Amino acid sequence: MESQHMLSVLKQVQDGTLDIHTAYEKLKISPFEDLGYAKIDHHRKIRQGTPEVIYGAGKTAGQMEGIIRSLLSHCPKNILITRLSEESASYLAERFSLTYDKLSHIGIINRTELLTASGTIIVATGGTSDIPVAEEAALTAEVLGNKVERLYDVGVSGIHRLLSHIDSISTATVIVAVAGMEGALASVIGGLSDCPVIAVPTSVGYGANFQGLSALLSMLNSCASGVSVVNIDNGFGAGYLASMINHIGGNEE
Amino acid sequence: MESQHMLSVLKQVQDGTLDIHTAYEKLKISPFEDLGYAKIDHHRKIRQGTPEVIYGAGKTAGQMEGIIRSLLSHCPKNILITRLSEESASYLAERFSLTYDKLSHIGIINRTELLTASGTIIVATGGTSDIPVAEEAALTAEVLGNKVERLYDVGVSGIHRLLSHIDSISTATVIVAVAGMEGALASVIGGLSDCPVIAVPTSVGYGANFQGLSALLSMLNSCASGVSVVNIDNGFGAGYLASMINHIGGNEE
Amino acid sequence: MESQHMLSVLKQVQDGTLDIHTAYEKLKISPFEDLGYAKIDHHRKIRQGTPEVIYGAGKTAGQMEGIIRSLLSHCPKNILITRLSEESASYLAERFSLTYDKLSHIGIINRTELLTASGTIIVATGGTSDIPVAEEAALTAEVLGNKVERLYDVGVSGIHRLLSHIDSISTATVIVAVAGMEGALASVIGGLSDCPVIAVPTSVGYGANFQGLSALLSMLNSCASGVSVVNIDNGFGAGYLASMINHIGGNEE
Amino acid sequence: MESQHMLSVLKQVQDGTLDIHTAYEKLKISPFEDLGYAKIDHHRKIRQGTPEVIYGAGKTAGQMEGIIRSLLSHCPKNILITRLSEESASYLAERFSLTYDKLSHIGIINRTELLTASGTIIVATGGTSDIPVAEEAALTAEVLGNKVERLYDVGVSGIHRLLSHIDSISTATVIVAVAGMEGALASVIGGLSDCPVIAVPTSVGYGANFQGLSALLSMLNSCASGVSVVNIDNGFGAGYLASMINHIGGNEE
Amino acid sequence: MESQHMLSVLKQVQDGTLDIHTAYEKLKISPFEDLGYAKIDHHRKIRQGTPEVIYGAGKTAGQMEGIIRSLLSHCPKNILITRLSEESASYLAERFSLTYDKLSHIGIINRTELLTASGTIIVATGGTSDIPVAEEAALTAEVLGNKVERLYDVGVSGIHRLLSHIDSISTATVIVAVAGMEGALASVIGGLSDCPVIAVPTSVGYGANFQGLSALLSMLNSCASGVSVVNIDNGFGAGYLASMINHIGGNEE
Amino acid sequence: MESQHMLSVLKQVQDGTLDIHTAYEKLKISPFEDLGYAKIDHHRKIRQGTPEVIYGAGKTAGQMEGIIRSLLSHCPKNILITRLSEESASYLAERFSLTYDKLSHIGIINRTELLTASGTIIVATGGTSDIPVAEEAALTAEVLGNKVERLYDVGVSGIHRLLSHIDSISTATVIVAVAGMEGALASVIGGLSDCPVIAVPTSVGYGANFQGLSALLSMLNSCASGVSVVNIDNGFGAGYLASMINHIGGNEE
Amino acid sequence: MESQHMLSVLKQVQDGTLDIHTAYEKLKISPFEDLGYAKIDHHRKIRQGTPEVIYGAGKTAGQMEGIIRSLLSHCPKNILITRLSEESASYLAERFSLTYDKLSHIGIINRTELLTASGTIIVATGGTSDIPVAEEAALTAEVLGNKVERLYDVGVSGIHRLLSHIDSISTATVIVAVAGMEGALASVIGGLSDCPVIAVPTSVGYGANFQGLSALLSMLNSCASGVSVVNIDNGFGAGYLASMINHIGGNEE
Amino acid sequence: MESQHMLSVLKQVQDGTLDIHTAYEKLKISPFEDLGYAKIDHHRKIRQGTPEVIYGAGKTAGQMEGIIRSLLSHCPKNILITRLSEESASYLAERFSLTYDKLSHIGIINRTELLTASGTIIVATGGTSDIPVAEEAALTAEVLGNKVERLYDVGVSGIHRLLSHIDSISTATVIVAVAGMEGALASVIGGLSDCPVIAVPTSVGYGANFQGLSALLSMLNSCASGVSVVNIDNGFGAGYLASMINHIGGNEE
Repeated sequence: MESQHMLSVLKQVQDGTLDIHTAYEKLKISPFEDLGYAKIDHHRKIRQGTPEVIYGAGKTAGQMEGIIRSLLSHCPKNILITRLSEESASYLAERFSLTYDKLSHIGIINRTELLTASGTIIVATGGTSDIPVAEEAALTAEVLGNKVERLYDVGVSGIHRLLSHIDSISTATVIVAVAGMEGALASVIGGLSDCPVIAVPTSVGYGANFQGLSALLSMLNSCASGVSVVNIDNGFGAGYLASMINHIGGNEE
Repeated sequence: MESQHMLSVLKQVQDGTLDIHTAYEKLKISPFEDLGYAKIDHHRKIRQGTPEVIYGAGKTAGQMEGIIRSLLSHCPKNILITRLSEESASYLAERFSLTYDKLSHIGIINRTELLTASGTIIVATGGTSDIPVAEEAALTAEVLGNKVERLYDVGVSGIHRLLSHIDSISTATVIVAVAGMEGALASVIGGLSDCPVIAVPTSVGYGANFQGLSALLSMLNSCASGVSVVNIDNGFGAGYLASMINHIGGNEE
Repeated sequence: MESQHMLSVLKQVQDGTLDIHTAYEKLKISPFEDLGYAKIDHHRKIRQGTPEVIYGAGKTAGQMEGIIRSLLSHCPKNILITRLSEESASYLAERFSLTYDKLSHIGIINRTELLTASGTIIVATGGTSDIPVAEEAALTAEVLGNKVERLYDVGVSGIHRLLSHIDSISTATVIVAVAGMEGALASVIGGLSDCPVIAVPTSVGYGANFQGLSALLSMLNSCASGVSVVNIDNGFGAGYLASMINHIGGNEE
Repeated sequence: MESQHMLSVLKQVQDGTLDIHTAYEKLKISPFEDLGYAKIDHHRKIRQGTPEVIYGAGKTAGQMEGIIRSLLSHCPKNILITRLSEESASYLAERFSLTYDKLSHIGIINRTELLTASGTIIVATGGTSDIPVAEEAALTAEVLGNKVERLYDVGVSGIHRLLSHIDSISTATVIVAVAGMEGALASVIGGLSDCPVIAVPTSVGYGANFQGLSALLSMLNSCASGVSVVNIDNGFGAGYLASMINHIGGNEE
Repeated sequence: MESQHMLSVLKQVQDGTLDIHTAYEKLKISPFEDLGYAKIDHHRKIRQGTPEVIYGAGKTAGQMEGIIRSLLSHCPKNILITRLSEESASYLAERFSLTYDKLSHIGIINRTELLTASGTIIVATGGTSDIPVAEEAALTAEVLGNKVERLYDVGVSGIHRLLSHIDSISTATVIVAVAGMEGALASVIGGLSDCPVIAVPTSVGYGANFQGLSALLSMLNSCASGVSVVNIDNGFGAGYLASMINHIGGNEE
Repeated sequence: MESQHMLSVLKQVQDGTLDIHTAYEKLKISPFEDLGYAKIDHHRKIRQGTPEVIYGAGKTAGQMEGIIRSLLSHCPKNILITRLSEESASYLAERFSLTYDKLSHIGIINRTELLTASGTIIVATGGTSDIPVAEEAALTAEVLGNKVERLYDVGVSGIHRLLSHIDSISTATVIVAVAGMEGALASVIGGLSDCPVIAVPTSVGYGANFQGLSALLSMLNSCASGVSVVNIDNGFGAGYLASMINHIGGNEE
Repeated sequence: MESQHMLSVLKQVQDGTLDIHTAYEKLKISPFEDLGYAKIDHHRKIRQGTPEVIYGAGKTAGQMEGIIRSLLSHCPKNILITRLSEESASYLAERFSLTYDKLSHIGIINRTELLTASGTIIVATGGTSDIPVAEEAALTAEVLGNKVERLYDVGVSGIHRLLSHIDSISTATVIVAVAGMEGALASVIGGLSDCPVIAVPTSVGYGANFQGLSALLSMLNSCASGVSVVNIDNGFGAGYLASMINHIGGNEE
Repeated sequence: MESQHMLSVLKQVQDGTLDIHTAYEKLKISPFEDLGYAKIDHHRKIRQGTPEVIYGAGKTAGQMEGIIRSLLSHCPKNILITRLSEESASYLAERFSLTYDKLSHIGIINRTELLTASGTIIVATGGTSDIPVAEEAALTAEVLGNKVERLYDVGVSGIHRLLSHIDSISTATVIVAVAGMEGALASVIGGLSDCPVIAVPTSVGYGANFQGLSALLSMLNSCASGVSVVNIDNGFGAGYLASMINHIGGNEE
């Protein structure tokens, strides 16, 4: 897809409508805007096929406002903000149309219903404490145009709770399995389904949990096929990847 | 899918053609065959939609022979054996039609060309030492009916080597990025493509590599979206998952 | 129980049949025999209620022969030897009546059928590679007088295999769950049963398994109640503890 | 025990009093109540033979109130709440009859004396700083119907303090050994007693203690037989398992 | 030394002045006083030859008051309290004659000059940030009757600072080397001196220091002979051990 | 350089203008001033060729004031203070001419423009969250007399952003690569340039980042030549080393 | 430097001597040769200014022969092979003019004296066991045109050995400090010199050395300025970087 | 002690019998002999007061022969060689009078009875597998002139075995406690004695022992006072330090 840009520039050089030094600059540098603290890449949406996302952690409300204003010009709907504190959410809510979920710290500017893929993404959790991470995944996937079904608190120590949802599990296109503690949910779901399972270890637990290391290692060692893992507590990453996979399955017409 | 089985059993009870104690047994137990050392599940192929796979590590050649004979009755082609030693391969080659790849220690019984998905899977490596793991992924994906393109030795310390393949990267359905040492390949590919990237850390390296920990942590912390990770050196798992995702994109007709 | 000994000594002092210096020595030192390389404690059997056990790792066949000869005088049957190499087993087999299991490296001198507890111990494994550790547990429990039921290769990625044994699981007195890789077996069994579950992580696996760390952490973080954990690959410890618990439930008459 | 339910449903189908579709639903799903944040399983008490327990960490006082109200309908006494903050305890104390222990953060709704097993559980600690975890174990065991004897501050660096309790140690049915720092208490007690020892590492200590890792590894490597380990600071788990084992020994009449 | 007690009891039994049941109790239990939260062992001073020490961390001011009152009856001077917070120090200062050092959080009740050993203990630090731990060691050693010389901020990156004290180093009886970061001080001092060096790693540093792990491992791997290591930040332990060694060298007359 | 001092002292002994005991003292001890809490070494500037630096962490504002006053007598300009809190900065600003950068917590007393080396140092970051560490490096290098070019937010997941600066990268004398998360920036820059690359891992990230361990290991395992690593978040160390290397390249005239 | 290539291609398009599709291909792909197992980049020498290097680990003698033949066409002298086994060295010695050092496993094809930089590189080791890694560094630096001075076995536990070389240390341009065990050498040298110090941790040691982790952490936490670290046992990387830095200082004429 | 040398040199300069340049050289360099592979420091014996020791690991028999010949000129008796392989021992035995202990791999050249300190060193082990490390400590201490008492196999899981030696423990000058697995021996001995305890963790064990980490952490966290720790399996270091401490207590006349 970059080649289109390069060929077009080369064409202009050939036609004599562009000098080679300007061409050189055009070929070397992708257009992005320098705000002083972060380079916004308007082309990325096209390159990666997704709405804009702002990683809120470590950014001031003022910085985020600047980024949002820059993004709105070309992306008027469904700008996703992850790890958005309540304080920053209040600040932004006064300036933009913001939907905010306290549990997952997800904010969405100009939220609009969107369904662009035909399959269903299941987001499942082992316990109730895993729900904030799961909601980060679920809301991310919804903003990106997916139908999401939530199966919360279906951990493996009460396997009948999970088995009662066997029909959903059998028909999903992709499943996000969110679990802390021993992280066994991913393996059990991986054994029950024949679709990709994205495992999200959470830092829920204490002691020999070591801030999520226990669930992380469990999931990496899953004996079920079709399971891959993202970073501890990375609900956004799982939701984003689930959407990517779900859109391979064809669009909703 | 289980529900069909359950409803059929219940129907027979209703009809009076099955007593409740036999029904109870049928509902409780899925059919599988007990060889003494491993339970072969003939239904799994249907449930998970894939050919049979034997994990060769820790199994004697004799045990594998028994498993293969049991599987052949219902799965006559493309039985995949991972981590198959050269010694066991010799033993099996005398008894079956075996294709064996020394580098990746992959064996295939009754190998047959198969193309059941329309997309392309790229398998890329950072260095030449990562190739055995990459071949495990690539051969697994091929046996499972996928078209595979290999991009080997395109590590990030010579970024132009990777960039020269930008067209392939742009059009792949799913990419398997195999790398040891610093494991940066997954992030760079993740930034260049808009398809799912399955990262496979390898144990290639020494010192502070700590048997693959370095690459594993790098890949889990990737700042690129769409990247997920499997276990260190788990080429099979990556190839299997890549095939699963590629088949979501529709079948080859 | 020590008090009987102390009171008897004190009585002799009171009666004047024992001088205080001899009494002092008797009170201070328990009787044990010094072989130069290991102190054999003949009283331990009484104190801990079990036959003698020799930890074979790091002992020469000759050293073990000496220990066995010393033990036979007061413990004529069912001397258990763990981690016994094939070489040492050959040496001992020429000198004693030895039953040897190659898989688990368990040796038993003068093996005799014994059933002293009324309950049943289940020993379950996640995969076939976990069987050596499981057999160490099972044979230990059998030598200690327990009825043992083996459920091998019932790992959580094929949950129906485990569920088909729900009746056994429901009626066991204590369950030993042996698993490597992600170690989820303990949690699932813990959720299905209402008896103590002794989890044995194994070093089976590779990569991020880190020689059993993954299964160990999983099992320690189990969200099921009633689960406790022994050292990685410690089948003997699990079998011994299971026997201890099973004997609380009353003797076989 | 599930089989009774299944057979009863199958009987109704056989009798024609139940259609197969309703039967299918009954067989597939166990009854539980959906509160939106946690699924309460009224059948679990029967399956696992214990009163209800609420894991208080990460739950709001309001959420706990809802769960308690739901539980009270079928479990009117001795609902145990672990990791209950003082704030939430105040809130609940205004609405229920709550017994609260500040040290261990244990709350009990409608506490009632209960003795259902004949043996004695010893809960021992190495130091005074381990007492909060020990009390979590002791109170849990008491609520579950056990007689508990506390031996606090009997750490191994003053071995005479522990030895002075040798009579209690000799007659206990099960011992919970709670210790931080070097965690040696479990091994010494394991060598003195012939009953199961449940070791609870605590995070008490500093420096190379690494939040309980030191005690955890010590206990897992115990050279005494009959010792198993639960998670760091998991007093509840130890008390629960101790009760399970103690009840094997027969009921108090 | 215990034997004196035992022989005396046995003598009384022999003489008929003590019945055997009372004797049994006397032999079994060492005398200590139960305050409910900590068992004070008045005999320990004699057994270990040192004044009393209270580990202040995790104890309330009230609890410490109780312990101090109990101790004062037999140990009227120089009661050492480690890890004493400023708040608790204020509380105790109102009730006792307390000397308090804010930097090291050491408190001393009824401090009195004391010199009972003839040698000199050097306490050296790598940097200024290590001084709190060093003072814990130095004050402990002083309270225990030692002459202490402080060499602070003589870290190895300016080796001339350390070398300028070569005369002191050559004549010390024992040296406490306190250092964080790379912890090299212990090795260099170990090479310069021919007396025991007690190394105290500190948690001073950041990043790959990992809370003192870096200095701890360095010190354990010291290539200099005569170096041993105590826990991270354990100034008290080092001062106590230094005093023990210094007193082997003979008393100050 | 020390030899000049030694020879001069020896000359005076030879000349009889110095007695041997005074000479001994002069040879043994380098001159430094003892402030009680830190030994200031006025000779170090000469020995290491750099202005004075105060490591602010763990020092009170008052302590720093004392050190500054001592240093000013011989180093009137550009005293660098790292890890200076805002509170201490306020205190010092009232007493000295202080330039303070909030982001990097760098303070400079009597800042003066200085350019003593001819090459250029590039300081690059992977993301915006790495900027505080990068500024610590950049300001340190500037105070030490270097020309610094900043390339911020050029992380590898958007490789075109980095490639657009290829001309700067090609002509730099030394590059400081600052990155958290997967830390791949150092390898990619190392592959693009032919000058030394100093890699600074940062603690930016979460989960399996483990406070910078992920980036640290990545950078140590870099497959690009010419890359070395400093401690996590050690911007100062990188800036200082970069200056040292840059000055090898010759002075600015 | 790439810009020259790009501008030249663009010039040809402008002149009409090159069509845009050929230009596109030229701009996208750097020339390299595909041997099937490793891509040789003839341009790299120019880009990075160094002779060719082959990482011998994991390559067969035959593969290395192929690579060498390809390289010789444009790089006739001083091809460096690291981690070359004795077996492979024998094979290559029969086919090329090979200089081989058994200790460091370094091989050099067509070795020729070369001195292209004016400064001196010191390579120092803590002990004799570190010499193989040090020789890897020293030989690499020599092949790259540097004067190298070796200071072996000057570890910090005998500081006078190091201090006796103070003159060399004072005049070096860059120092490579190679040490295992506690790795303190780098800090002490860093304090004595005012030039860059490249620290190489080695895996020499045992126990809490953890395969070089101890030295690695020590060196990363060095309190001396100007110290940076490469991977454990990475002598080549240190020698290469030292050469890079030394060449900044101007060429030998 | 160095001052004598310095003063003597200065005196000669003063007297005019030495020129300043020669004096400079004498002052700067301590005399040692360069064998090419290791610098032997004949002065070290005087400085550190001990016979010579050769660390045999990683040295060829030939290298050791050279070192021994050099040492014999000034140290004719009791040269200690640690980690000496059986092969090298055979080689040396043909050339010198060598006493060799297979278990501990200790060799002694020209062994001679020696008793230079009046106290007794106890060397205790937890199990029989710890004896090789313990013998390394015991033989080292004997060669260095100490009386050594061995208490082997007195681990804490059979505490009565240890307690039966209470008289020895009470009268020792210093105790070396050698233990693997949970390493609790050091704490229990530390509580029973009032002399310094040197703890030696061993790598004996398996699984969560992690090559001695478990025992190491236990010993560092010992709650007994007077305990310090050396590296895993470092019997020599413990024996050497024990001798150093024992000699403080005065010489044997």
